[in-house]
Amino acid sequence: MAPQLPPPSGVVTFVTDFGTKDPYVGVMKGAVLQSFRETRIIDITHEVPAHDVEYASLMVRALLGRFPSGTVHVCVVDPGVGTDRLPVCVAARGCYWIGPDNGVFRALFDEPDWEARQIDRVALRMPEPSATFHGRDLFAPVAGRLARAQLGFRAIGPRVEEPIGIAVSSPGRVAWIDHFGNLVTDIPSDSLAAGTAVRIGDLELELRRTYGDVAVGEPLALIGSFDTLEIAVREGRADALLGVERGAPIELVENHQ
Amino acid sequence: MAPQLPPPSGVVTFVTDFGTKDPYVGVMKGAVLQSFRETRIIDITHEVPAHDVEYASLMVRALLGRFPSGTVHVCVVDPGVGTDRLPVCVAARGCYWIGPDNGVFRALFDEPDWEARQIDRVALRMPEPSATFHGRDLFAPVAGRLARAQLGFRAIGPRVEEPIGIAVSSPGRVAWIDHFGNLVTDIPSDSLAAGTAVRIGDLELELRRTYGDVAVGEPLALIGSFDTLEIAVREGRADALLGVERGAPIELVENHQ
Amino acid sequence: MAPQLPPPSGVVTFVTDFGTKDPYVGVMKGAVLQSFRETRIIDITHEVPAHDVEYASLMVRALLGRFPSGTVHVCVVDPGVGTDRLPVCVAARGCYWIGPDNGVFRALFDEPDWEARQIDRVALRMPEPSATFHGRDLFAPVAGRLARAQLGFRAIGPRVEEPIGIAVSSPGRVAWIDHFGNLVTDIPSDSLAAGTAVRIGDLELELRRTYGDVAVGEPLALIGSFDTLEIAVREGRADALLGVERGAPIELVENHQ
Repeated sequence: MAPQLPPPSGVVTFVTDFGTKDPYVGVMKGAVLQSFRETRIIDITHEVPAHDVEYASLMVRALLGRFPSGTVHVCVVDPGVGTDRLPVCVAARGCYWIGPDNGVFRALFDEPDWEARQIDRVALRMPEPSATFHGRDLFAPVAGRLARAQLGFRAIGPRVEEPIGIAVSSPGRVAWIDHFGNLVTDIPSDSLAAGTAVRIGDLELELRRTYGDVAVGEPLALIGSFDTLEIAVREGRADALLGVERGAPIELVENHQ
Repeated sequence: MAPQLPPPSGVVTFVTDFGTKDPYVGVMKGAVLQSFRETRIIDITHEVPAHDVEYASLMVRALLGRFPSGTVHVCVVDPGVGTDRLPVCVAARGCYWIGPDNGVFRALFDEPDWEARQIDRVALRMPEPSATFHGRDLFAPVAGRLARAQLGFRAIGPRVEEPIGIAVSSPGRVAWIDHFGNLVTDIPSDSLAAGTAVRIGDLELELRRTYGDVAVGEPLALIGSFDTLEIAVREGRADALLGVERGAPIELVENHQ
Repeated sequence: MAPQLPPPSGVVTFVTDFGTKDPYVGVMKGAVLQSFRETRIIDITHEVPAHDVEYASLMVRALLGRFPSGTVHVCVVDPGVGTDRLPVCVAARGCYWIGPDNGVFRALFDEPDWEARQIDRVALRMPEPSATFHGRDLFAPVAGRLARAQLGFRAIGPRVEEPIGIAVSSPGRVAWIDHFGNLVTDIPSDSLAAGTAVRIGDLELELRRTYGDVAVGEPLALIGSFDTLEIAVREGRADALLGVERGAPIELVENHQ
C-alpha cells in the first residue's frame, strides 16, 4: 500500500560512520542549511563502525516512531560511494529516509506501507556530486529541500521496486553492545512469554522488570528500551562480566522453576 | 521563598551518561520534538561517567546562570531508573531542571529560591514509561511541554519538600579533571585571598592570573572558568605532570613570600 | 577589496579543542543563546588536538563556501587566552569568522576579499572576560549579537591590517588523518594533471576516481572531499596499512605508463 506522505516537520537527523573529529559532519549540515536555513538538525550517532551497513540498519530501526511525522532521517554509511549503488529516499512510518540503497534501510521494508524513490540528480537540477562524499553533495541537499517542503517525495525520482535488504536474519543473537556494556539483542519482547528464561554461554537468567530488581553487580535479563531482550549488569558492564561480543548467540529456555 | 517562574526560552539542554555511540540521546531528543518540534536542543555532555550522580551534579552546577531564563535543563544520570526514586522538576535560578531525585540537582538547593515538583505522570496523562528509559518516556516529553509553554511548572505535580542531596561536602579537593588535563577544584575563588598559595602533593604553587603567566610546560594555580581554583600546566596536562586523580586533596597555605 | 557583508543567516558554528566531556562547549552555546535565543548552533568539531592552531586552521579552510552566507563561524583554539593576542572577527567568503588572532584564520587571508576587525569589548559594553575562557565571555556573545543582526560587522572594533598567519607553507604533505584513516593532503586537485602518480614512502599510486575503483583492502590515490589529494584504502585504513603519520611527505611523479 502507498505510505502516508506527511508534511515536513522541519527536522533532519543523521546516522553516519563519520566520527566527530573531522569536518565531514559539519559540512554536511552546512549543505542542509544551504537548502533550508531553518532546519533543526539532530545527531543520532556518527559512531557506527566504519562501513558497517548491518550496524547502521539497527540504528535506523531504533528511530521508527520516535520523531515527529515528516522528519527526514539521513543515513550515510556508504562504502560503495561513487559506484553504481542507487541513492534513495524511502517514505515509511510517517517519515522520510535518505541514503544509499545498500541495506541500511532494510528495517523499513518490514513495515506494512513504504515506497522507495531513486534520487534523480539531473531532474532535480543538482550539480554532479564528488566521487567520495554523497552525504554532502546529494543526500543533505535533498534532505534540506524535503524539510523545506520545496520538494515533494514523488518528485525525487523514479520508483525503486526492489531495494536492497528485504531479507532479515532470524533473531537470536547480541545485535549490539551499548555504551553501558548492555547486550542489546534482536529478540523482540513479544517472543518472551512469562516463565521464559534466557541462556547466554553457561549462564541462565530469569526475566526481570528493571535493573533495580537485582543486587548491584548482578546480571539480569530484561526488556530493553527498544522492546527487545537485553542482558545487563546492575550498575556494571555485562560485556565485561560475561566476556561476550556482538553476534553472540542467545537462547530462550523454559524456566525450570 | 518561591522562585521566579519565567516563560520558556524554547531551549532544552541535556546532561547524561549515555555516551554518543548509541541511539539513546537521539531518540530522547525525538521525544522532546514530538512534544514541541520548534525546540532548540543543546548537548551539554553525554560523557558523565556511567551512573556517577556526584559527577553529574558538578555539570549541573556549571550551568547555573549560563543559559537564557526559561531554559529547561534535563539531567539523566539515573542508576535507579524503574525503582521508586522520584522523577522531579525543579525551578531555580530562572531555569527548569528535570531528572531523577537522586542528588544530581543538589547544587540547586544551595540557591536562595527553589521549588521542586514531582512529575505526576497520571495527572499529565502520559502513558506508562518503560522500566529502563525514563529519559525518553518521562523527562523528555515533560521538557518539551514546558518548553512549548503548554504546561505550567506547578501543574507538573505535587511539591517535593525534601529532595535528595542538600548536604554538600566541604571543599578542598579535585572535583573533576577536564579534557585538557586541568584539575578543576571545588574551592571557590572567594576563599582565595591575595597571597594565598596552593599545595597539592609536594608542590606549592602561587596563584596566577592566566596560563600565559608561566612558561610553556610549567604548572600554575589560577581561578578557572567556573570561579573555582584550578591547577593547570601551560599548554600541557596537569594530571599527567602531577600524577593526580579526581578527589585528590588540595590545601591552601599562607604564601611564604 | 572590501568583502561583502551579507545579512546574518542565524547560524553559528564552532571549531574548538575543548572535547565534549566537559561543560565548556555547552556553556559557550548558552552564551550565544543569551545574546540571541533563536540561533541555530552547529558543531563542526571539538576534537582539534589541544592547542593545535595549525590543525584548527585546516578545519577553518574546510568550511569555506559550505554554509549559508551570513553564517558566523567561531573558532576557539586559543593557547594564548588571557595574554595580549587580539580577539578578532573576519569577514570573508560571505561569512563571519570569530576567534583569536593566532593563525587559525590564515586560510581566509588567501581569499581575494577579506577584512579583519578587533573585538573592542569596551565599545561593545561587554564586561571584562575571565582570564581563561574568552570563548564563553567574548567570542560567543559577539557571535550571538552578529547572528541576531543586533551588531554590524564594522561596529565590532577597529580594523586589523596585518592579522597573523598570512604565510602558508608550500604543499606536499599529509595535512591530517581522518576518522577512516584516510590521509588528507594539502595538495590541491588542480596540481594533479592526468597521468600524474603519487609517491608516499616506497609506494607509488595512480590517481583513481573513487574507492570502488580498487579491490577491498587495496590503497589508492584520489581527489578527496575538499578538493585535495587523498590517499586511502578501500574499506580499510591507509594510516595503518602504510604506517604513515600526519606531516609525512608526498611526492607527485610522472606516471610511468
